[in-house]
This record gives sequence, structure tokens and C-alpha cells, in this order.
Amino acid sequence: MTNTQLTLVQIDNYGPWTVTPDPRREMDLQTLQSRLFADLAQFVGARDGYVFFTRFDNMVAVTNGLDHADHELLQESIGNRYPVTISLGVGVDKNPAVALERATDVVQRAGSAQDGDRREVLAGDTIPDADRTDGDVQIAHFDVNDATGKYTDRLNEFDTFIHIEQGYASLMRHLREEHGALSFFVGGDNIISVTPDLSEADYRAAIEHVEAEADVELKVGVGTASNAHEAGFAAKHALEDCRHLGTTVEFATEPAEIADD
Amino acid sequence: MTNTQLTLVQIDNYGPWTVTPDPRREMDLQTLQSRLFADLAQFVGARDGYVFFTRFDNMVAVTNGLDHADHELLQESIGNRYPVTISLGVGVDKNPAVALERATDVVQRAGSAQDGDRREVLAGDTIPDADRTDGDVQIAHFDVNDATGKYTDRLNEFDTFIHIEQGYASLMRHLREEHGALSFFVGGDNIISVTPDLSEADYRAAIEHVEAEADVELKVGVGTASNAHEAGFAAKHALEDCRHLGTTVEFATEPAEIADD
Amino acid sequence: MTNTQLTLVQIDNYGPWTVTPDPRREMDLQTLQSRLFADLAQFVGARDGYVFFTRFDNMVAVTNGLDHADHELLQESIGNRYPVTISLGVGVDKNPAVALERATDVVQRAGSAQDGDRREVLAGDTIPDADRTDGDVQIAHFDVNDATGKYTDRLNEFDTFIHIEQGYASLMRHLREEHGALSFFVGGDNIISVTPDLSEADYRAAIEHVEAEADVELKVGVGTASNAHEAGFAAKHALEDCRHLGTTVEFATEPAEIADD
Amino acid sequence: MTNTQLTLVQIDNYGPWTVTPDPRREMDLQTLQSRLFADLAQFVGARDGYVFFTRFDNMVAVTNGLDHADHELLQESIGNRYPVTISLGVGVDKNPAVALERATDVVQRAGSAQDGDRREVLAGDTIPDADRTDGDVQIAHFDVNDATGKYTDRLNEFDTFIHIEQGYASLMRHLREEHGALSFFVGGDNIISVTPDLSEADYRAAIEHVEAEADVELKVGVGTASNAHEAGFAAKHALEDCRHLGTTVEFATEPAEIADD
Repeated sequence: MTNTQLTLVQIDNYGPWTVTPDPRREMDLQTLQSRLFADLAQFVGARDGYVFFTRFDNMVAVTNGLDHADHELLQESIGNRYPVTISLGVGVDKNPAVALERATDVVQRAGSAQDGDRREVLAGDTIPDADRTDGDVQIAHFDVNDATGKYTDRLNEFDTFIHIEQGYASLMRHLREEHGALSFFVGGDNIISVTPDLSEADYRAAIEHVEAEADVELKVGVGTASNAHEAGFAAKHALEDCRHLGTTVEFATEPAEIADD
Repeated sequence: MTNTQLTLVQIDNYGPWTVTPDPRREMDLQTLQSRLFADLAQFVGARDGYVFFTRFDNMVAVTNGLDHADHELLQESIGNRYPVTISLGVGVDKNPAVALERATDVVQRAGSAQDGDRREVLAGDTIPDADRTDGDVQIAHFDVNDATGKYTDRLNEFDTFIHIEQGYASLMRHLREEHGALSFFVGGDNIISVTPDLSEADYRAAIEHVEAEADVELKVGVGTASNAHEAGFAAKHALEDCRHLGTTVEFATEPAEIADD
Repeated sequence: MTNTQLTLVQIDNYGPWTVTPDPRREMDLQTLQSRLFADLAQFVGARDGYVFFTRFDNMVAVTNGLDHADHELLQESIGNRYPVTISLGVGVDKNPAVALERATDVVQRAGSAQDGDRREVLAGDTIPDADRTDGDVQIAHFDVNDATGKYTDRLNEFDTFIHIEQGYASLMRHLREEHGALSFFVGGDNIISVTPDLSEADYRAAIEHVEAEADVELKVGVGTASNAHEAGFAAKHALEDCRHLGTTVEFATEPAEIADD
Repeated sequence: MTNTQLTLVQIDNYGPWTVTPDPRREMDLQTLQSRLFADLAQFVGARDGYVFFTRFDNMVAVTNGLDHADHELLQESIGNRYPVTISLGVGVDKNPAVALERATDVVQRAGSAQDGDRREVLAGDTIPDADRTDGDVQIAHFDVNDATGKYTDRLNEFDTFIHIEQGYASLMRHLREEHGALSFFVGGDNIISVTPDLSEADYRAAIEHVEAEADVELKVGVGTASNAHEAGFAAKHALEDCRHLGTTVEFATEPAEIADD
């Protein structure tokens, strides 16, 4: 059974900082946000977690495998190298949406995102090593069927983008409302969801829903492991199976060979 | 009258590269994508343009002020420092959607995004210096009313995110279909649109549409200049006026004091 | 007694790559080199190790605390995100110079740095966890007395730089020849040395040697721990003691309070 | 005749910042320093200038081609994205050492590098466009003969490093004292010097001096242009000529074909 550990990463007092004393150059803000995200992706990714850019001032990470000391180090390192600081809240639950609620709650209770005095909250409990299992994290990796042939090589980029967004918006709402799963667009035509234990039927239903509501055809690879990297890697391999076999839903039955070279 | 110069930035052969010889660690892909975007933001931003991350493998830039040599240098520098290369297509029109169509078209005609042989396309004509005017670029900067009070400090981050996405999806479709304007989520609760000449009534209509369709309240600052940075900076200042005056739509009547310190 | 684990990081085939098919823009090479070093510093630093930029195409890291899997992951991640790959050789010995010889040797035996076919060597044995002790790594952190008052605020930058270089060159040779210690300039007026077990008398002799040979006055803080970060942090605190007490050599007698916030 | 425009880049109040309220993790400082340098390299390099990391808290740039507005933008952008700010002083003279003296002087007159109140100095005059000529910048690119065969593939990395350092220290002092030329190690076995107008005899004398004093054999390519990039690129091509022809000193007689693809 899944046991998702999520960490909410929130930049402290960011809104006010971006306009004080005056509005800052937009491209400098974009650069800062993206590079901060990239550093989080490297730190968390090297510990076999996942981070999603989400809204950039608020980011969601799947941190099964990271303990309190890891979170503390991450926060310290960011504070040493950026003109802003981050607050970190951790939440755990078999249901991702509930886990995120807990993560958000411990940060909110410490103060507003725009509270001039609230800095570097570090709260919430990580899963003790002894309690971790191979079923803790389920990751589903979706992509759009033949996006390049249907969209990228034929429409102007914005209309391709609108199609992908429609598919994403539909999937994100459906999976959140039906299952408490959290879905994130990760670039190209790819969406990664952190889910509770879902079945093949659940995924088929989601894919049919998106096709009906947004006229976008998805396929999905699903993996489960003790951490996001291994679950996600297995999901990627399963997605490659979809591509080769021409199928719509594939589960990684065994852990993907994590050939890390 | 607006005369928008847009550049489509497309990573060559990216889909195949990400899975050859095997799928790559997702967090490494996220890091590469974000840092590539950050470098584009710095290069284009320093020349007073804007870049939007869009789908990361395909990005849209407002490049009024950048000439052919600038595009060539950007392409060379990326090619020297990343394991991938980029193709650049430029398009110009008073209507942003048409400009992007032109930009996409010159790249597509050179070959598929996943053509193993197509690399570093550099095509399309930039606006000659002599033809540039202070009315070339209109930028509208939207944000969600009291996002922190209504969402960030109260809901779990994903539900806040879903609300912001609904607002974005609604605005992006409306502005594209009604006016050929292109809208991009840039983090937090901010959306930046590149528009043709729109009136206060057009913006009010767009904001009412989004409130009705997605139940999200927006306000907007609008600026016009010969380049995206100045237009966008004026728009940011106008948005601050909305904040202080409690209004919904504000146009920067004079160029914002660009106090670049 | 010290037991230094050093890793040689060597970019594969870099010389030829920088001029094939033609010489590349120098500032792009500088950017790539610096950002690669920064990524190594983050990865190794987060595991409590140290990395020194050395020659940039060849870098030296103190990797007590990193195991084989860590090295493999580092190599994979760099290979995913840069247009070059790295070879890693590990060597262990109570004497740092001997450890580095071993590290260099395992890479050299696999092939030349400019061998077109040699890529991503990963060789050498890391210290088993059970064999690690609190005396494994000794770090000495030197800085120049009153560099700002004597040099930075008075001479032109290059002449200040020449003075610092003289001090560095003298110290690096003396410590290497006398003790097999390896010294690295790390910016400003700071030099960090990885040493075997040296005494206060050894450090006083080194400082006197540098004053006599290069007319540069140094002071030093020394720390010892199971890894470079803790040893180095203790050394930094000891150096602060020199500053406050007006002394020349200070050893951290107890582990510095590693207040990691 | 040369007319070198140099900019001193100095991080404001850096020494105190690195230890306030407590010493910061060394690898975070290394990361910040390297990434700041990389950003300077990109900004200045894209405008055809050169930057040298020098001491990281103080860096030297050849900025022929950058005007006051460029310097102001660079300073603003760094201030928006880093936890530190930079002061910039510009100096111009046919002799590089004198130019740097002027650049350092305008910063020093505004206050100490560690003055808690001195921030973001921006002083000194850039060369007016109309006064620029193709002879303004002379760049000499040195490398060590057969460094890979003699050192990298045979000695341990630190002893190779010591040899390269000896060669660098000898060259830097000789060229500074004899000619006011400024030399910078740029990685691998490469040294780049910014020189006044020097002759083939001057370069031969420098190379002989280094061989006699440090037992390191150098060869050099020399280029001249209106900016550092073009002069340096021509120098690199001339160095390739040395490699192919087996010569020791080569001047780029015509501008190198700047094939910027």
C-alpha cells in the first residue's frame, strides 16, 4: 500500500520581495525561479526523490527517502546561495492529496507565505527508515499519443500548447477528485502523477475521461517502489512498452532494471 | 500598432534523446530543461526580450530588439554548453498568434522536431531597426486577486494550484480565440500575455469571462513599448497601481520609470 | 591517524573536444567548466566532501563519506546534463599525495585523458563504512593576514593577485614536499590544505617558510573529523579564533558546533 | 595601438558576509562563486568581452565593446539573483596594468571592499564607440607543450598541477614586470594574457624566461582586434597553427575566420 511522503517547498515572502523596493526585471525572476527549481531537482533527485516546479514559488516534492537532516541541509544550502529563503513542510499519508494537505498545514500554521517575519519553517515528520516498503510510492507517467506527428510538426506552437494544456487540466482534475492523485506537467507532452494504489481500470477510466472531455489521447506507464525515482523509472520503462506494443496502459511488473550508467 | 516579433525555440530531436540508449533520470531532465530556459531568459532578457518556458522542449520568446546575429550567437552558445542543440524560427506580425505561426512554420518546413538529421535551424526575418516603433509590443500582466489570502494560506498547495490553472486555462483560450493573444503562466499567480492592440474593454471582457467560467478573479496592468522588457515593466507598474488603487484594469499611460538599479 | 580518500575527476577527451570541429568561444568554455565544478561542489558537498577546481579539466575531491554508488550516480548525472563526460578514480592513504597518486593511477591505466575511446572510467575502492574514524581527514584553512587592508584596498587587483599567488605557490610546494599535503586556492585570500597528521610546529614552520620565501603572512585554523566538511568547518571556526585572539595557528580542540542553519 | 578597457568586478562586503552570522558551508561558497563567475562570463562573453575568475571575490574583465548601460544592467541583474552585490570599476589605457590600476582606483575611492555601507559602485568611463579601433585589444593564448603526454598521463594530478602553476607564476610575473601585461590561468594547461603591443621577440623572450625559471615549455598564439573575443579567437587559431606547424610563436596575420556556428 502506498505511503506517500510529500514536501511543500515555499519561498518565504516572495511576492513582496519581487516588488521591493521596485518591481524587478521579469527575466531575472524567471532565471532565479528556474535555477532554484533545478537545484532542488538535483538535491532531491540525487536522493531518489522527485520535485515538480508547480508554481515555482510553491513547489511539491515526493521525498520518500529523505529524512529531517536532508531537509535541513537543503534549506541551509539554498539560504547560503540565493537572495531568498525557503520553508519546508513534510506530510505523509497513503493518499497523496492528504499528505500534501498535511505538508501545507504545518507551513501555514507557522505563518503566512507573505509574513515578513516568517522564515525557514522546517516542520513535519518523515517516514522512519524501518517503516519504508517497496509499495510506498506509485508513479504514473503519461504522454500524449503521437504528439509530434499530430501537433508539434503541424500546428503553431501555441495551439499545440493549448491542446496539451487541455489534456493536462482534464487529467489533473479527474485524478485529484476521483483518487486524491496529484498530477504535474513536466515538459514536452509528459505528465507525471503521484497516486495512491490505482488499478489498470482506474487508469483506463482516467484516459477515457480525458479523451472525452479534452479530445486528447494519452497512454501511461505505471511503477511502484520505495521511492519516486525507482517508481518513476519503472513507469518510464513501462511507457516505452506502451510505445513498442501499441498499448495504452502498462504496469512495470518487476522493478525496471535500474541501469544507472 | 503592434508588430510582434516572436521566436520559437525548439530543442532538436529531444524526445528520442531522452530515451536513448535508455530513459534518463527524470530529475536530470528537469534540471537540464530548467537551466536551458534560465540561460535563454538571461540572454534574451539582457536584450530586453522575454522568454516563456511553455513546454520546455518548445519555448516562445518575444524577441523585438534581437537581430539575426543575436539569434545565431544564442544558438552557438547553447550548442557549446549543452548535450542538445536548438532550432530557432522567427516570425513577425501585428498579431502574436500569426507571428508564432510564421515562426513555427519556418522550423517545421526544415524538418520534424524528431528528425535525427535536422539540427540548428535558424530561419525567419527579424524586424529591421529602422522599422521599429514604440507601439510594437503590448504586454498584459495579470495576477489573481488576493491569491495569498484566498488560496496559498488556506488550501493545500495542489488545490491552490488547480484554481490558478483553471484561471490560466480559461484566460489563455479566451485571449487566443478572441484576439490571437498568447498567454503564459510565469509562476506564483502571474500570467503574462503578449497581445495585439487591445482596449480596456477587451481586458474587462476577458476578466469577466474568466470569473464566469473559472471563478477566478484577475486584475491586469498593461504596457506598450518597442520591446517586451519595457512594455512588461510598464505593465508591472500598472499592476501595482491596480493594487494600490483597488482597480481591475490599468494602462501605463507613460513609460514606467525604468529605474534599472 | 588520517586516512584520506581522494577522487580525481577528469573530463574525458576535453582538449580535443574544445577545438573540434573548430575552437569554441572561450567564455562558453569558462562557463561550462565553472558550472560543472559548481555541480560537483553541490553533489560532493551535500555528502560532506570537498571539491577543488584545480585545473577544471582535472579536479581533486576529498570524498571520505562517498561510496561507489555515490560516485556512479555523480558520473551518470553529469553525463546526462553536459556535452562531456567524466572519469572518476578513487585512492585512499594516510598521506594525501599518495592517495592522489592512487586515484590518478587507476584512471591513467584505463587510458589517456585524450584517448578518443576512453570514457567514464570508474575505478578505485572507497573506505568501507566500518573502517571510518573521526581522525580520517585533517583540513587546514589558511588566509592572508589583513589582505583587505594591505592589498585589496591599496594595490591594483593584479598586484594583489600576484602577492596572493606567491604565497600560494610557496605554501603548496612546501607542504607537498615536506608532508605530502595538497593545497588549493579557493578564492579571496584563502587556501585550503588536505594534510596528513601535522602538528602545530609543522604549521608554524610552513607559515615561516612562506613569509621568508614570498613575504606573505598567513594564519591557519586546523580541524580533524571523519569527513572534509566537518574537518573544514572546524578549521574555519579555528581560523575565526585566530582572528579574535590575534594568534597564528589554532586547532579546533573539540568538533566545531556544526550549527547547520 | 592597444587601448585596453578593463573592468574590476568586486563582490561587496564578501569577507564579512561569508562568516556572518556564522561561517557558511565551504562548498556552498564555492558554488556561489563559480556560478557568479559563469554568469559574468556569459553576459560579458555575449558582448565579445572576456572575464577571468582571478580571485572570485575580485575578478578582471576585458570589456572593450561594453558601455556604461551594459555595466549597469549587469550589476542590476546580479543584484536581483544573488545574496551579494557587485561593484564595477572601469579603467582604460594602452597598458593593461595601468588600465586595471584605474579600474581598481575608482572602486577603492568609493570605500573599502569590506565597508558595510559601500554597495554597487559603478564608476569609470568606457571607450566611446567612435574611438574604438581594430588594434585595441591584444590577446596571447599560451599552452604547455604536450601537457597530456608529459604530465597528465604520467604524474599524479597534484604534481602536474604544481608544474602548471610554476609555469603560470613565472609567466605572470615576467609579463607584468616587463610589459604591464596581465596573465590568467583559465584551466587545463592554458594561460591567457591581455597585453600591450608586444612583438614576436617579446613573446620568445617570455617563453625562454619561463623555460629557464620553471622548466615548463610554452607555445603561444597571438591575436589583435577591437574586442577580446575576436582577438582571443584569432589567438586560439594561431595556437592551432603552432600545433600543426610545430612552431612556438604564431601571430594571426588576418582576423581568424570567426565561423560562429
